[in-house]
Amino acid sequence: MAIANDNFKKVKESYLFSTIAKKINEFKQANPEADIIRLGIGDVTHPLPQVCTDAMHKAVDQMATAEGFHGYGPEQGYDFLREAIAKYDYQDRGAYIEADEVFVSDGAKSDTANFTDLFGEGNIIGIPDPVYPVYLDSNILAGNKEDISYIGCTSETKFSPSIPEGKLDIVYLCSPNNPTGSTLDKVQLKAWVDYAREHNTLILFDSAYEAYITEENIPHSIYEIEGAREVAVEFRSYSKTAGFTGTRCSYTVVPKDIKAKFADGTAANLHAMWNRRQSTKFNGTPYVIQKAAEALYTDEGRMQVKALVGYYMENAKKIRECFENKGFKVFGGVNAPYVWLQTPNEMTSWEFFDYLLEKCNIAGTPGSGFGDNGEGYFRLTGFGSKERTDEAIRRISEL
Amino acid sequence: MAIANDNFKKVKESYLFSTIAKKINEFKQANPEADIIRLGIGDVTHPLPQVCTDAMHKAVDQMATAEGFHGYGPEQGYDFLREAIAKYDYQDRGAYIEADEVFVSDGAKSDTANFTDLFGEGNIIGIPDPVYPVYLDSNILAGNKEDISYIGCTSETKFSPSIPEGKLDIVYLCSPNNPTGSTLDKVQLKAWVDYAREHNTLILFDSAYEAYITEENIPHSIYEIEGAREVAVEFRSYSKTAGFTGTRCSYTVVPKDIKAKFADGTAANLHAMWNRRQSTKFNGTPYVIQKAAEALYTDEGRMQVKALVGYYMENAKKIRECFENKGFKVFGGVNAPYVWLQTPNEMTSWEFFDYLLEKCNIAGTPGSGFGDNGEGYFRLTGFGSKERTDEAIRRISEL
Repeated sequence: MAIANDNFKKVKESYLFSTIAKKINEFKQANPEADIIRLGIGDVTHPLPQVCTDAMHKAVDQMATAEGFHGYGPEQGYDFLREAIAKYDYQDRGAYIEADEVFVSDGAKSDTANFTDLFGEGNIIGIPDPVYPVYLDSNILAGNKEDISYIGCTSETKFSPSIPEGKLDIVYLCSPNNPTGSTLDKVQLKAWVDYAREHNTLILFDSAYEAYITEENIPHSIYEIEGAREVAVEFRSYSKTAGFTGTRCSYTVVPKDIKAKFADGTAANLHAMWNRRQSTKFNGTPYVIQKAAEALYTDEGRMQVKALVGYYMENAKKIRECFENKGFKVFGGVNAPYVWLQTPNEMTSWEFFDYLLEKCNIAGTPGSGFGDNGEGYFRLTGFGSKERTDEAIRRISEL
Repeated sequence: MAIANDNFKKVKESYLFSTIAKKINEFKQANPEADIIRLGIGDVTHPLPQVCTDAMHKAVDQMATAEGFHGYGPEQGYDFLREAIAKYDYQDRGAYIEADEVFVSDGAKSDTANFTDLFGEGNIIGIPDPVYPVYLDSNILAGNKEDISYIGCTSETKFSPSIPEGKLDIVYLCSPNNPTGSTLDKVQLKAWVDYAREHNTLILFDSAYEAYITEENIPHSIYEIEGAREVAVEFRSYSKTAGFTGTRCSYTVVPKDIKAKFADGTAANLHAMWNRRQSTKFNGTPYVIQKAAEALYTDEGRMQVKALVGYYMENAKKIRECFENKGFKVFGGVNAPYVWLQTPNEMTSWEFFDYLLEKCNIAGTPGSGFGDNGEGYFRLTGFGSKERTDEAIRRISEL
């Protein structure tokens, strides 16, 4: 009989957001009249930027003709998109990244999770707590549960991960952070890169929320820090930048300079390995979708992204201020669409979830879902519409 | 330092089709005037069916409005598509499959390769030789190289895999077959299902080419065979059915009845595990693309698919007949778009590749790229345009 992967028994049975959806559905069935405002899962609500839908219409028209038809594309993404990314997201910021170091994909979730395919056995893997659950779950599924070293993040450091005393082989960093909205500024990120260079640590840097940075001293890319090319992989996504959560496009940068080793100590080339992984287990992002992503790098596209991000950040700011005014201890909402608040009266995260759902019909995300250090905290997002966010704030203010 | 996955050293450095592309490019540089006809990689050339481009335009328009916008979809696919698949591809054929057993994805390559995530250690894994290289490569990357039991397929059985004497825990079957065009008819497939039920073998059934079946006694789905629900997972794709190679949509059926076990002998639920795998490591297929796939199940859509498949099969038939007339031993081309021929004069597959490229400027695929038993064979596809296929046949006829 087929023997199944035991590691599946080690992950919690239900994914955080599935549990939330189930709880909301149950509440809705019990309270059919309730007008629930969802500020939980972090999904966007605004239409796609017009440059994207224009580009998609054009690409669909191409696909309807023999001359314009596109079959299998390169597994790594089309050059037109890889080159735009290298130029606009990196080179124009003074970060040296070449187009063939960019791997276009269908989502930062897929890429951060699938990157575990490249890990051998015996790594010490640093994962901040709290953080986006996929890093942990994908490592558990890959059999690395015993190799994980949690980096506790607390209010003392404003939920930024502190550099550990011991040696890590691999570390996940997420800035701006999901769920806490915390960031690593230039000094902090340089300290991490220096640590990584000293200890030969591989940094897996998730900057899916870089478009939400408003402060000048926060790097958008880890490659803005000198020496990062030799130690860091970067994950980016259009999901939040341009509302691509249902459109699916992202990319991962794997510089050719990154150093790793096989079990016998010989050099391993992560760039070649990721290329092999993607060539063998992935068949590229749809042509029509890559054309939509490319359009974001036009002048018009960049203006539309700016407007979209600004819209959500205005919501986040209002949520932040609303809770501050109520006397809550609040983090995030400045360089990230996430507002991270301490629950009142020592409520647990799930108690506050139930409380907010019942009293205000607002669904958020329990901080404990992101790790033990998230207990007693709660995440709300600016991704709702202005109108619904205003309504949520009205309800909270009256609480 | 990060320790990398040693198994990457065990796969051949370059993926078959990359090597072919490189060889063609070199030939082109040396012979810039050559008008090369590509009948190699198996990529389609015809535009998308109009029902698809119509549906995509509509879906893009929806994405441009607040009311019609779709953010994160279910990782498993939208119900509208899962239900259409369950009804039209299974229930209408008398195969009992429920919508929630269907997992929509971005490609059969991704799914067949990622399915190795579910395997524990110690399985005996049967892989036919020759066959689509992804089964083998993904298993090697997953650390299963020593667990593979090759099922040699030869001209004696018309390249159908024979049931082995020993016990397999997992077996890959591909019918209609890539690359040989061979099929398993009802009797043969029933024998495999019976074998699987007797030995508790998990069958991973790849029917990506089922739309090309022309003969009545060839099952389109393994679930047409009684008892298959308890032993078989099925992979399907729109890539060849509807020209989705650059549009990316596929699905995998994991029935809830399938039995597997963990290392300690307790029951493992593959349906729940695949659901967990996809929820954790995948974020769904783009909404716009799923709408395109849904349109294929309308009456008009089905007529357009039939016309498209008929067009390619007409090419395959002509290629088959052309080589038969030249006295070649030829397989396939009846229930599959692939024509599989024995090379003349005991040439190796790569020798014949060079020969055909030089003499006729036609690029095909060396059979040896699909396994040792493919040596001395060569694959050509019907996926070119009628005009280019006719030109290829003219050149071959004059050889």
